[in-house]
Amino acid sequence: MHNTSVINLDGVLLATLEGELTDEAAAGLRTELASRVVATSASGVLIDVSSLDIVDSFLARVLHEIAAATALLAAETVVVGMRPEVAITLVELGLTLPGLRTALTVADGLALLGKP
Amino acid sequence: MHNTSVINLDGVLLATLEGELTDEAAAGLRTELASRVVATSASGVLIDVSSLDIVDSFLARVLHEIAAATALLAAETVVVGMRPEVAITLVELGLTLPGLRTALTVADGLALLGKP
Repeated sequence: MHNTSVINLDGVLLATLEGELTDEAAAGLRTELASRVVATSASGVLIDVSSLDIVDSFLARVLHEIAAATALLAAETVVVGMRPEVAITLVELGLTLPGLRTALTVADGLALLGKP
Repeated sequence: MHNTSVINLDGVLLATLEGELTDEAAAGLRTELASRVVATSASGVLIDVSSLDIVDSFLARVLHEIAAATALLAAETVVVGMRPEVAITLVELGLTLPGLRTALTVADGLALLGKP
């Protein structure tokens, strides 16, 4: 199963990733987030990965691309809810998500983006 | 002897390394710190190396991996208490711990992490 929902939290888009992301779903998510950042003048994007048991090199690249695209659109991306075992796996794979900010929870992510 | 204790100092985890670290102990420390950063919402990790007479390339890699994993979990790692001869040896080995912040004492490390 792959599923992604995007909701607008008072000027910040929250994308929740669930299950495995296909190539098409990843490309769709990138496009949707870019469009909605512009349409809603969002100041930031939170990507909730707390449902994911694993983040592989493909997903790491997708996260990086989303962050790069939203940065070009004047919004900042924060990855939230990463599980400790996922962080360990990423480091073992040499994938340290350079340039991506992280937060433990959605609330922390909102705070990082300057939202109360 | 190898031994590592981890304590929580008001939202910052302090890991004290003593004696030589085996592969298993290093992996265990990495996992424990990642889990506890998430469980305690720690904002930072201090790694006290003041008991170590030597830091070799293995330990340098372990420190780097811990810093990378905790960064993914929104916590910052500071290496504290390095002895001057250890610093010299690291430089002689060409190991300059890129990306790792350092402080002379635990108190300085806490200040670096914004703790009073």
